[in-house]
Amino acid sequence: MIEPRTLKGFRDHLPAQALARERLLDVARRVYRSYGFAPIDTPALEYLEILTGKGSAETDKQLYRFTDHGGREVGLRFDLTVPFARFCAQHVASLGTPFKRYHMAAVWRGENTQRGRYREFMQCDFDTIGTTSPVADLEMVLVVHDLLAAIGIERFTIRLNDRRVLGGVLAGLGLAERSTDVLRSLDKLGKATREAVAAELASHGVPADAVDKLLRMAELAGPPADVLAALGGLVAGSESGRAGVAALGALLDGVQAAGVAAGRVVVDPSIARGLDYYTGVVLESFLDELPTLGSICSGGRYDNLAGLYTKQPLPGVGASLGIDRLLAGLEELGRLSATETPAEVFLVYFAEEHLADYLRIAAALRAAGVAVEFFPEAKRVGQQLKVAAKKGFPVALLIGSDEFAAGTAQCKQLATQQSTTIDWHGDLHVLVDAVQSQLISRDASASCRPSRGGPPPAGDHPGLRP
Amino acid sequence: MIEPRTLKGFRDHLPAQALARERLLDVARRVYRSYGFAPIDTPALEYLEILTGKGSAETDKQLYRFTDHGGREVGLRFDLTVPFARFCAQHVASLGTPFKRYHMAAVWRGENTQRGRYREFMQCDFDTIGTTSPVADLEMVLVVHDLLAAIGIERFTIRLNDRRVLGGVLAGLGLAERSTDVLRSLDKLGKATREAVAAELASHGVPADAVDKLLRMAELAGPPADVLAALGGLVAGSESGRAGVAALGALLDGVQAAGVAAGRVVVDPSIARGLDYYTGVVLESFLDELPTLGSICSGGRYDNLAGLYTKQPLPGVGASLGIDRLLAGLEELGRLSATETPAEVFLVYFAEEHLADYLRIAAALRAAGVAVEFFPEAKRVGQQLKVAAKKGFPVALLIGSDEFAAGTAQCKQLATQQSTTIDWHGDLHVLVDAVQSQLISRDASASCRPSRGGPPPAGDHPGLRP
Repeated sequence: MIEPRTLKGFRDHLPAQALARERLLDVARRVYRSYGFAPIDTPALEYLEILTGKGSAETDKQLYRFTDHGGREVGLRFDLTVPFARFCAQHVASLGTPFKRYHMAAVWRGENTQRGRYREFMQCDFDTIGTTSPVADLEMVLVVHDLLAAIGIERFTIRLNDRRVLGGVLAGLGLAERSTDVLRSLDKLGKATREAVAAELASHGVPADAVDKLLRMAELAGPPADVLAALGGLVAGSESGRAGVAALGALLDGVQAAGVAAGRVVVDPSIARGLDYYTGVVLESFLDELPTLGSICSGGRYDNLAGLYTKQPLPGVGASLGIDRLLAGLEELGRLSATETPAEVFLVYFAEEHLADYLRIAAALRAAGVAVEFFPEAKRVGQQLKVAAKKGFPVALLIGSDEFAAGTAQCKQLATQQSTTIDWHGDLHVLVDAVQSQLISRDASASCRPSRGGPPPAGDHPGLRP
Repeated sequence: MIEPRTLKGFRDHLPAQALARERLLDVARRVYRSYGFAPIDTPALEYLEILTGKGSAETDKQLYRFTDHGGREVGLRFDLTVPFARFCAQHVASLGTPFKRYHMAAVWRGENTQRGRYREFMQCDFDTIGTTSPVADLEMVLVVHDLLAAIGIERFTIRLNDRRVLGGVLAGLGLAERSTDVLRSLDKLGKATREAVAAELASHGVPADAVDKLLRMAELAGPPADVLAALGGLVAGSESGRAGVAALGALLDGVQAAGVAAGRVVVDPSIARGLDYYTGVVLESFLDELPTLGSICSGGRYDNLAGLYTKQPLPGVGASLGIDRLLAGLEELGRLSATETPAEVFLVYFAEEHLADYLRIAAALRAAGVAVEFFPEAKRVGQQLKVAAKKGFPVALLIGSDEFAAGTAQCKQLATQQSTTIDWHGDLHVLVDAVQSQLISRDASASCRPSRGGPPPAGDHPGLRP
């Protein structure tokens, strides 16, 4: 007998978790598509030379690598950006630019699992490649907004900054040469204490008054116009710094024109993003109820995606939804449903002699778009209802021999145990309509559903508990 | 500069292919869910001992295996059945039975690529575990039917058989001891010639008259009642053979009760399925227009899923959609769309001073559920329309400064180049409604859409060309 177990750092997704994840992916897919982003996919395995040296020394160390049957050195992708760079270098001539894609797929990193991280997790990226248009930057912000709103999150904040603004401030302080170190330190604000960040900046040789100015810049807050005015003063001597401030202003105007509620998108000069390759706007987004969770969707603009694989410059802008972090956050907030079934109706198998009738009823419900599980064994009704309740079905439909004779059915709301008698007299249309109104009345009675702050409003979010 | 390339046997999915695949997966997900099958996921990597010796000597040889950072011997899954067996052994106590799951995920096999096979491909399985109820068998047939119908395939045939029938026939011919070899040979009918199969059976020591009887059995065709009667005669001496014939009869009755069109599900005594573990009903399904493609969805009943990992017997029944084979078939039939975008409306960026208006219009369309791509650069209109046509957008929306002044818009059907003027007078509701009717009129004018033979009927199938 072999012990059934998963590898350290890996996990199974049971139905409740898998359903919650599928719902988030489905919302993300719908929002990405609503802006014209198209799906792509790349292989899990790549030539090792494609993957190594592209991330950090840490990602190189964490890489799952081996020699395949044909003696090739190969590795499992550790993110979706490096394969996308390879993909663009290979296909962009036939695809044309601007090219907008999304990619949702697993990545693998042999990380230290003690930090509560998994060695297999999902990434959910979207990018626009081959254009420097500020409209593409604006769309990134709008997609992130629509995504978080469509997931049903009521309170979230998207925080914007621009690397050019940071560059302008650093230039003004005579720190342009040390920008990488300084930005990495600033990026720790919010995770580390102010004092720790100040000490780290000082350790990079930043003079005390510059540390003070940097921290005061990072702490600028208030009405966007005031923050922008203050930043404008700090970058006055830098042309690209002024361009960054202007770009942030245009982004705020744009999101307002698109109907985004005031306060959902703010300028936050402390957002630096650790990654070296960002060159323009940078973005992070947070659940207001769980700020310590960290950014659940982050991104920015970069000058060149695929310089290692092609001479064609490919500027772009994009962001990535941290689906596992978001799921963890929603769970912590008690906003994830524990439902183990995707179906709405549990059809009790009451009387074996009526099997053909149950099949007809189930088929009619499915034809009307109602997902229905028909229990496969004519066990005791109480036993079947226990299964239905445990799995989280909204309603159970009970039709025994007596009910068939009388032309009735019992529709039971499993949360309240309330039963309603349906008079359908053998007419499937009547039965289907009655079951549908039971499902609707249940939805309506579930008060305080999460409000949606923006498009797309279509579809409900059964993965989120009201 | 690193050469951008994929590994031999691996491939990228560009938008047109990725969209077609997402559409099929979406239909499969919807149909599986409509019967109450719930999603699960398992890691791509498993302990090597979980994977080896579970398939054939061939799958062992093809396994991608290596030693990980922690010195563990690991492998990439080569199918979804072995991980599911491990999963059930680990979790079935908490999940309870019957347990119905679907799993759609990539698997990896270091196959000989000369056969046109890929080393990374997707599987799309559903199974009901922990019950021997014939209702579960029937549901498998219904799910396969609904799936192929919902994909929009007009002409397909589901072929059923039962391993007990084959066993009964072999017992009657005194060939029970040689059943594995005989079934593997019979399974080649349709792929190899009758003569080649006869020769192979003879080489297993099957006497000439038995070869003749076996082949005549395998070639039984005609009205289901006649085929069942003939099989009944052949298995008369075997109790389990008679049970198999009765089970096939009950399945045909059941699919009829559920409203499946006559002739879509037939009994085919030549269906044997090569895999040893099937013990009851077996099923294959074929596109009538492309029978040589092979079965696109296959499955059956087995006595015990996870005997290697747990002492709890887990009988089950399930099938697997061959998504890559089906995509290849649809492409061969010219039924795959070449569309490269998931969006319906291409909004031309005409006049930069109207950026805020375009943003408002795009947001209003998205709020109404219409996916819209706003071109990010105010390039020449002809150039923008060329991009829209190449990507396969149904309609382009053109609103220049003159149109804004006049309160009009041009809506262009890109397939016919027909333009319609919309009078919207600055009222976004009017504009959105008009664009939606343009999209609907285009759908309606596309004649001979694939008819759907069964539930679930909801949703359209934009991946299929009418």
